[in-house]
Amino acid sequence: MDFINIAKAAKQASLEIADLNTDLKNKALTAVADAIETNKEKIFDANKKDLEEAKALVASGELSQSTFNRLKLDDNKMRDMISGIRDIIKLEDPVNKTLFTRELDKDLILYKVSCPIGVLGIIFEARPDVIAQISALAIKSANAVILKGGKESINTNKTILGIINSALDNIEGFPKNVLNQVFTRDDVAEMLKCDKYINLIIPRGGNKLVKFIKENTKIPVLGHADGICHIFVDKSADLEMAVKVVIDAKTQYPSACNAVETLLIHEEFPFKTDLLKALETDGIKLITHPESWSFEYGDKILSYKYVKSLDEAIEHINTYGSGHTDSILTTDTENAEKFMNKVDSAGVYFNTSTRFADGFRYGFGAEVGISTNKTHARGPVGLEGLTIYKYKLKGKGQIVADYVSGEKHFTHRDL
Amino acid sequence: MDFINIAKAAKQASLEIADLNTDLKNKALTAVADAIETNKEKIFDANKKDLEEAKALVASGELSQSTFNRLKLDDNKMRDMISGIRDIIKLEDPVNKTLFTRELDKDLILYKVSCPIGVLGIIFEARPDVIAQISALAIKSANAVILKGGKESINTNKTILGIINSALDNIEGFPKNVLNQVFTRDDVAEMLKCDKYINLIIPRGGNKLVKFIKENTKIPVLGHADGICHIFVDKSADLEMAVKVVIDAKTQYPSACNAVETLLIHEEFPFKTDLLKALETDGIKLITHPESWSFEYGDKILSYKYVKSLDEAIEHINTYGSGHTDSILTTDTENAEKFMNKVDSAGVYFNTSTRFADGFRYGFGAEVGISTNKTHARGPVGLEGLTIYKYKLKGKGQIVADYVSGEKHFTHRDL
Repeated sequence: MDFINIAKAAKQASLEIADLNTDLKNKALTAVADAIETNKEKIFDANKKDLEEAKALVASGELSQSTFNRLKLDDNKMRDMISGIRDIIKLEDPVNKTLFTRELDKDLILYKVSCPIGVLGIIFEARPDVIAQISALAIKSANAVILKGGKESINTNKTILGIINSALDNIEGFPKNVLNQVFTRDDVAEMLKCDKYINLIIPRGGNKLVKFIKENTKIPVLGHADGICHIFVDKSADLEMAVKVVIDAKTQYPSACNAVETLLIHEEFPFKTDLLKALETDGIKLITHPESWSFEYGDKILSYKYVKSLDEAIEHINTYGSGHTDSILTTDTENAEKFMNKVDSAGVYFNTSTRFADGFRYGFGAEVGISTNKTHARGPVGLEGLTIYKYKLKGKGQIVADYVSGEKHFTHRDL
Repeated sequence: MDFINIAKAAKQASLEIADLNTDLKNKALTAVADAIETNKEKIFDANKKDLEEAKALVASGELSQSTFNRLKLDDNKMRDMISGIRDIIKLEDPVNKTLFTRELDKDLILYKVSCPIGVLGIIFEARPDVIAQISALAIKSANAVILKGGKESINTNKTILGIINSALDNIEGFPKNVLNQVFTRDDVAEMLKCDKYINLIIPRGGNKLVKFIKENTKIPVLGHADGICHIFVDKSADLEMAVKVVIDAKTQYPSACNAVETLLIHEEFPFKTDLLKALETDGIKLITHPESWSFEYGDKILSYKYVKSLDEAIEHINTYGSGHTDSILTTDTENAEKFMNKVDSAGVYFNTSTRFADGFRYGFGAEVGISTNKTHARGPVGLEGLTIYKYKLKGKGQIVADYVSGEKHFTHRDL
């Protein structure tokens, strides 16, 4: 099918799913989780096919080992995938929530009600477990999706979405075409142009993918390209805490976007050489004159710089950072407040590791991704980020002319 | 000064104003309102200069009479401009509000706190009163702005912003370069490209201006191009109410974006000819086969169509509408609910005029504009639409490794 027809069908489906009640959506999610459980051998078989082909690409150097690892489904990932869907069933329904009720005048009541965004375009790299997760999030938030996965996982992706859609076909009242999949580069190009039907693009993948998407579409993009996170060690910081937190932020998972890349140390911090020594002892490579202060190592490598003041640290972060997550380590709460107010990032932390920037750790239950945008949604984005709102106004024939003439007056009373 | 330097200075100012307390911002707003009041003759003089030049353009047909009228400041507009600023002082400060507080674990507390967006680019047509209004909204929401007004009002705009900035210069602690102005088409082109420093573009003007901007920038745009609003008269509608509401929605201010453009009438509505006759008697020109169902007349002209069902009405609106505001007139509350849930517009109304779609009427106190976006802000947008949030996390040296190893567990308790 042509992309434009897929997009039109998704738009139609988005209008239909918007109206489903929570019970029906949860019933659908249960059916999806059950179907994946029942058909897991089929999914493993498809994944084996992908892995066979990928193995050759790894051998010839066309595919990295880490991509291969992400592509591979095992019992743990399968279990997480299924329990992830069941967790989403338990989350509060983010749509049809009344955000406020206001009397504009007698018998003229305004309701602000949350509703789905519409059609989401999801572009992700070789991680087949994303399909099940995003499908579940879309169902719960009543959005339609068009998924484009990495070509390396095409068999796995097709099989998983086929199983999910068969399960949904059996749910009476669940609309067709909520979950759609496309496969080619041309489809991606069409998707990025399709602002008539697609309301939000969510890229899940590396820096290069996200940058390419942001530069090639007018559709709002929710995500982050870079994760240039900082830790500022103030002069009053506790050495032991600094060693522990910096090591966690750098080494617990170095390729995560919320891992620290640059360490700023107050030049009057009395234990600065002890700190650096402890980091090196832990196997962290320290770089003092990096080629760029905006480079994401994704590895056990850390840039560091001495700064003269809190202000210099804040300015460095606002200049070179990516607005993701930045932390101050200090015993001076006034400095901590200033840092948290002045650093213009989605996450501003005090005496804790940048690695906490994550939807699950924040208690959102599920995460769509982490956004460094300054509009709509910022930081780890849960189900709420897939919603917007509409205003419902219920009257009894009121007209504006009566309020303009002064015959009637607004009461503007929150109910 | 080059645009890029203005933008950089605005970005720096945005970081400084973000941290101001409510009292200081209100003090600045009071000074601004007082200064405009004191200097109003100077503003009228500048406006007269613009009007002289505009008069020649109207005579030669290069400028419309309605643009001329919008350009002209009189005592009423001056009074509204000043009282508009004083009203904004009374509004709740939209930033530094704690949106939630959550314990992630003992002594690890997450705060979601509202904050300004950053730098706003405002592009507006010949309405010099917009400068004062947007400046006041920017100060209250702690955003920096770069304003580009219509060239016809250049003297008035320069004078008003000059007076405002002189007043702000006298406020101790108020940062420089919060309110900036540019004047040329080249500046607009630079602004639309400047996604490094500008976080949101707000166009205030006609359909053509907004469309041009949306098509020529990757920066999020808050606004609406079209206002194709509908009223659906259901078969059970009350005739008297229908006549009254449709006349209000079409004629109370025909060039408003929330005026109705298309009337859909259930073919079984028994009084359909009476309704149409009453509208014609009121001077509304009725068109039954319009060239396009998506045309905004902005005049006392109304397209109409008979439909077979509520579903057909909903489908028509979702196909040809602009997602602005649409109303159903009915005595059937079930149909009303279905209409409000299924019509995918920012405003979905039941038994009332589409003209209520307005920030002041909604009780927001001030309005930035009306958005038909599906992300960030939708419908009439008040101060809240100029904010986003950041996550502050305060800990005592916690590290992620302890939660991954299972040594510690999240409590996720809302406080």
